[in-house]
Amino acid sequence: MNNPFFRNAGPFKIDKILEFIDINNNEDLTYSGLITDIRDLVTADNNSLTFFHSKKYKEFAKKTSALFCITTEFLKKDLPNSCKPIVVDNVLIATAKITEKFYPNSVEDNFDNELKNIDDTSFKNCVNYGKNVLIGENIKIGDNCLIGHNTIIEKNVQIGDNCHIGSNSIIRNSLINNNVNILDNCVIGKKGFGFFPNKLNNIRYPHIGIVIINEYSEIGCGSTIDRGSMSNTVIGKNTYLDNQIHIAHNVKIGDNSIIAGQVGIAGSTTIGNNVKIGGQAGISGHLKIGNNVEIAGGSGVIKNIADNSKVMGYPAKNIRDFLRENK
Amino acid sequence: MNNPFFRNAGPFKIDKILEFIDINNNEDLTYSGLITDIRDLVTADNNSLTFFHSKKYKEFAKKTSALFCITTEFLKKDLPNSCKPIVVDNVLIATAKITEKFYPNSVEDNFDNELKNIDDTSFKNCVNYGKNVLIGENIKIGDNCLIGHNTIIEKNVQIGDNCHIGSNSIIRNSLINNNVNILDNCVIGKKGFGFFPNKLNNIRYPHIGIVIINEYSEIGCGSTIDRGSMSNTVIGKNTYLDNQIHIAHNVKIGDNSIIAGQVGIAGSTTIGNNVKIGGQAGISGHLKIGNNVEIAGGSGVIKNIADNSKVMGYPAKNIRDFLRENK
Amino acid sequence: MNNPFFRNAGPFKIDKILEFIDINNNEDLTYSGLITDIRDLVTADNNSLTFFHSKKYKEFAKKTSALFCITTEFLKKDLPNSCKPIVVDNVLIATAKITEKFYPNSVEDNFDNELKNIDDTSFKNCVNYGKNVLIGENIKIGDNCLIGHNTIIEKNVQIGDNCHIGSNSIIRNSLINNNVNILDNCVIGKKGFGFFPNKLNNIRYPHIGIVIINEYSEIGCGSTIDRGSMSNTVIGKNTYLDNQIHIAHNVKIGDNSIIAGQVGIAGSTTIGNNVKIGGQAGISGHLKIGNNVEIAGGSGVIKNIADNSKVMGYPAKNIRDFLRENK
Repeated sequence: MNNPFFRNAGPFKIDKILEFIDINNNEDLTYSGLITDIRDLVTADNNSLTFFHSKKYKEFAKKTSALFCITTEFLKKDLPNSCKPIVVDNVLIATAKITEKFYPNSVEDNFDNELKNIDDTSFKNCVNYGKNVLIGENIKIGDNCLIGHNTIIEKNVQIGDNCHIGSNSIIRNSLINNNVNILDNCVIGKKGFGFFPNKLNNIRYPHIGIVIINEYSEIGCGSTIDRGSMSNTVIGKNTYLDNQIHIAHNVKIGDNSIIAGQVGIAGSTTIGNNVKIGGQAGISGHLKIGNNVEIAGGSGVIKNIADNSKVMGYPAKNIRDFLRENK
Repeated sequence: MNNPFFRNAGPFKIDKILEFIDINNNEDLTYSGLITDIRDLVTADNNSLTFFHSKKYKEFAKKTSALFCITTEFLKKDLPNSCKPIVVDNVLIATAKITEKFYPNSVEDNFDNELKNIDDTSFKNCVNYGKNVLIGENIKIGDNCLIGHNTIIEKNVQIGDNCHIGSNSIIRNSLINNNVNILDNCVIGKKGFGFFPNKLNNIRYPHIGIVIINEYSEIGCGSTIDRGSMSNTVIGKNTYLDNQIHIAHNVKIGDNSIIAGQVGIAGSTTIGNNVKIGGQAGISGHLKIGNNVEIAGGSGVIKNIADNSKVMGYPAKNIRDFLRENK
Repeated sequence: MNNPFFRNAGPFKIDKILEFIDINNNEDLTYSGLITDIRDLVTADNNSLTFFHSKKYKEFAKKTSALFCITTEFLKKDLPNSCKPIVVDNVLIATAKITEKFYPNSVEDNFDNELKNIDDTSFKNCVNYGKNVLIGENIKIGDNCLIGHNTIIEKNVQIGDNCHIGSNSIIRNSLINNNVNILDNCVIGKKGFGFFPNKLNNIRYPHIGIVIINEYSEIGCGSTIDRGSMSNTVIGKNTYLDNQIHIAHNVKIGDNSIIAGQVGIAGSTTIGNNVKIGGQAGISGHLKIGNNVEIAGGSGVIKNIADNSKVMGYPAKNIRDFLRENK
């Protein structure tokens, strides 16, 4: 769990945390210390709370260092003795509610009304910028950067050296490394489309991850890259995205990849290095696409793809098979 | 026909209306009173003009209260005696031309040059807003609303309480109910993509409908929702749209639905309640999608879908059939 | 090669040009005059340099008037005696490097920091415009034009009479003819997604073409139209594009065509007159789509389509065959 940007409103006592999810404390959960953070099973330390909602994470659960764990009656048996279970009906909703208390600014992306015209900040001396550029709090910008007209650098953004940001773009909660180009009309670092359906009023999921864009990459016009929920959204080095691309929360894309216009990649999918994706292809969530993969334009990928594969179709399959069957 | 916002330039005498469509009046159409509006067969009253262009509306035609009806030689026999036919070659083009005269501001969406910086309006006291927010005429904004930077609330917009509008968005001719979130870079309430192809210069269709977004809904970044032509475009309660979605004119979406990124819904389609639509799916125009339907990402829907169905593919079919055939 | 807008930084001596691509000059390439431009095989004159990278252009190569030609050891035999070969390993990379030297402003689209608020230009007297409109250098705007709020007319733009430009749009390097409508949030005239993959840092391709939009056409909200690399991107007369469309570099679209929402057309494809393309259809690059073609929504076109065809599917085929096979 990497959150250099979201302010942790904790620590909290365990009684307080249980109140957040409407659980009356009982003997088993007595603890006089403070809980400093909510983290995943692997990164939680012995002052943290974690969560365990699916048996596919059993091996991580067995080794967690967390002090408390939100889980179910069924799963709690796999936790080590050092970790006390907090049994709930719906682990993810309880986790969302507690995460929101630790990170209250991670649920909504309301505009930052603390931000200033760049003319009224110290950046006016070191950045080459257009008209009406707005700058929020907790911003770093490196040397030789350009920022276009009407662009909004909202809070929690680090931009490296030699970066070019276009006009009318909005960036928040993002780490932009050196030599990155972001073109016009992009929205980078907004919360992902993650929530729990709930009649009358869905429950929004906190997004405490960030967007990381690595060196020499380029993001095309009108693209949206959402920040992660409990992990980060990552664009690798020297990876180029064309216009109108949507990258959902927690996606990781490797280095030297090329993604053509209007592609969409759903949440938590991982894409390898040297991958080529044709225009309008769509990739479902929670998949693993290997290195050196080529995905033809218009394909719909619904399962993992091994290294060095070339695929096409909906659902995407070996490109030679697809073309032979569709002569 | 619901148009709380577009100013009616009528009433007109029947001779004037016939001039709009280059028809010389004749004895049959003599009427000394004023025609107050142009409306559909059902909502027209006995001071109105209506139109009847397809026999599938025959039952409505038989019962219309309208005084005059634009129709064809073939269809006119189904009108009641109280309604005089105006016979034309192309009912929809004639209707468009007359509608444009009643509602001259509904054809183009030229920017509103009457609007003001919000600092120069009374909203400065009751709205929490960013830099460079512009406000047009005929606007209402409820309590506890946020409006982000560079956002343009053009004319004819009502916003309820507790709404959050992002930055760089443009809203016109829309009714936004309480507790709605509209994120960054959206365009809401623009005229739809409706016109009559015509060599050299297409004839634009007036769009006198509005966009209605109901309580607790959310519209993702970079989305476009066009207003209706003769009816409204409606987003139900607690319905969430992800980024880069396009909703065409006259579409109605029900409550508690979830629509993932880059989905497109063509004109006049109706979507039920509790519907889930995966990323990049496309739905053709004039379809009826039932309640509790699930449409897999990337699907192309070209026919009506019954309640409780799960579909996938292009053309979309039963998801189990699709997956079995495409192993 | 049509580049009314990009400033030619030449002429250069041949020794200098060879330096750009790290070639030591030798006896064969001695020439004391100046090379004025880099052009394609057909338009090059006897003061120009050209390039020849594929045998499919052999017939053009045989007749070129160019003085020098970047080519390969294998292809050089087809050049006329009047044209001296410059033999390289990769013709396109060498061409890109030299083109960048002739047209240094065609590689990046960094914001123009010379531009001004329209209030501070002579356009304030002849254009009807919104708030915060910015105007760059080398701009012409005709009579009766409207330009919406926050719109940026960057450098090298000619706009004809009676054009309506929406709000929040960005236009550069474009020729907009009379009576064109461009709606909100568009980006027109940006460099295309053309580059040579190169580990660590891709090599961007110069884009010295422009975007041409002909009379009576309309471009929907949130659309992106990229300018050409060595030729232009062209939208025909009275052609209407719906919202969120992406038109890549060098695409040519004919007259009286209708393109629905979220369509994407990849680079260098040519589309005829009277073509109808349904929503979300995608068309691969370097294809020829004939006149009077209808492409159903959601189709993926991967080969040329003859005049008067109706196609559907992915890959797109005859629509009757597709519908029969997919009942």
